[in-house]
Amino acid sequence: MQEKQLAVVAVSGGLDSCVTAAIANKNYNLALAHINYGQRTESRELNAFHEIADFFQAEKRLVIDYSHLTKIGGSSLTDKNIEVTDADLESDKVPSSYVPFRNASILTSCVSWAEVVGANAIFMGAVYEDSSGYPDCRPEFFKAFENVIEEGTKPETHIKIETPVIHMSKAEIIKLGMELKAPIHLTWSCYKDGEKACGVCDSCALRLRGFQSIGAEDPLDYEIRPDYLKK
Amino acid sequence: MQEKQLAVVAVSGGLDSCVTAAIANKNYNLALAHINYGQRTESRELNAFHEIADFFQAEKRLVIDYSHLTKIGGSSLTDKNIEVTDADLESDKVPSSYVPFRNASILTSCVSWAEVVGANAIFMGAVYEDSSGYPDCRPEFFKAFENVIEEGTKPETHIKIETPVIHMSKAEIIKLGMELKAPIHLTWSCYKDGEKACGVCDSCALRLRGFQSIGAEDPLDYEIRPDYLKK
Repeated sequence: MQEKQLAVVAVSGGLDSCVTAAIANKNYNLALAHINYGQRTESRELNAFHEIADFFQAEKRLVIDYSHLTKIGGSSLTDKNIEVTDADLESDKVPSSYVPFRNASILTSCVSWAEVVGANAIFMGAVYEDSSGYPDCRPEFFKAFENVIEEGTKPETHIKIETPVIHMSKAEIIKLGMELKAPIHLTWSCYKDGEKACGVCDSCALRLRGFQSIGAEDPLDYEIRPDYLKK
Repeated sequence: MQEKQLAVVAVSGGLDSCVTAAIANKNYNLALAHINYGQRTESRELNAFHEIADFFQAEKRLVIDYSHLTKIGGSSLTDKNIEVTDADLESDKVPSSYVPFRNASILTSCVSWAEVVGANAIFMGAVYEDSSGYPDCRPEFFKAFENVIEEGTKPETHIKIETPVIHMSKAEIIKLGMELKAPIHLTWSCYKDGEKACGVCDSCALRLRGFQSIGAEDPLDYEIRPDYLKK
């Protein structure tokens, strides 16, 4: 049997990237990367990352500390002076939780690592269809970035970007994760840093609605399960 | 008189970025960014950055610590197990000093910052024509990256990348720097971390040859001035 190739997977500790790692795991050996960028829930997400990496018995793992996104601010996730607003799933404005160009930062470090360890794919659990409207989750962004990799790395380096859940709804991601036996119980999605997940931020709202729509129970504990879930 | 717009300039402390800052200074207020990425000459370059920022009385400055490029390694500039090779200006291979995808890292953090402070241009002193053959110094790379910015930031964000010295020879950059009264005496170019600049690494060789070809004297002290300079 041929040796599997290596893929770098950006694993935040959240649900989407956990399911993405499970998808990559079917065809690749895993090199899992996690980025601390001074977000409110940094330590929770890092724990989730290590538990997920243990679960998959990842061949390599890399934890990166990005202090610059906190220094730069401009987002409710990294700047304590900006409030985490409750979800408004109908709005077409970029929400306050948008961290300027964060996915580009994550991708660039994954590319540097992939080039050195010889990985030929980078997986990222970005979601566009059912997302919060972050511009750096758009398929066009990843397409453009793939071109930057081709132009900006060694001639012999070829790395493709895989975003296998980008067109899926949260419900579809959860369903696929369950089918692949992804360790959803180890993930952390909430933008706030409470004892339990808050249940009302953008991220909790999307996740809870996803479980609800397939009639499944989220294994996490929540502070509040919002009213619309009981409708 | 209309208020000048703001530009982010990536200033390494070297000659090319110093002259680039002098070019940007003609039409913009300056927000100067510097990245420590665990290179051998980190503290020297940081000093040069602050002295250059003082010289230009920059409106804003930002110092970013990138530990991941050291962790990742793969370059003689960040990995002490890889030797800094002497210059081979005739070779068409990517040299050992290439830091995988480093310019993408620098650009992404400049974009994050530019988006938050409202700058509409990023200047970078990349040189291609007379360069060491780094793939992330190619004009195509910057063109592709500009597209990534357009796709990956807020709809109202428009940031162009300016690389005004990219097609210049080192001699032309030095000449222009002198005309603009750029503080060349404050810069540090050498890849090694000696008392004086080594005179033989890729970077020293290019710089010395540049001064020589316009018949000017480099204000820096060198350990060695290689033989070809005396021909």
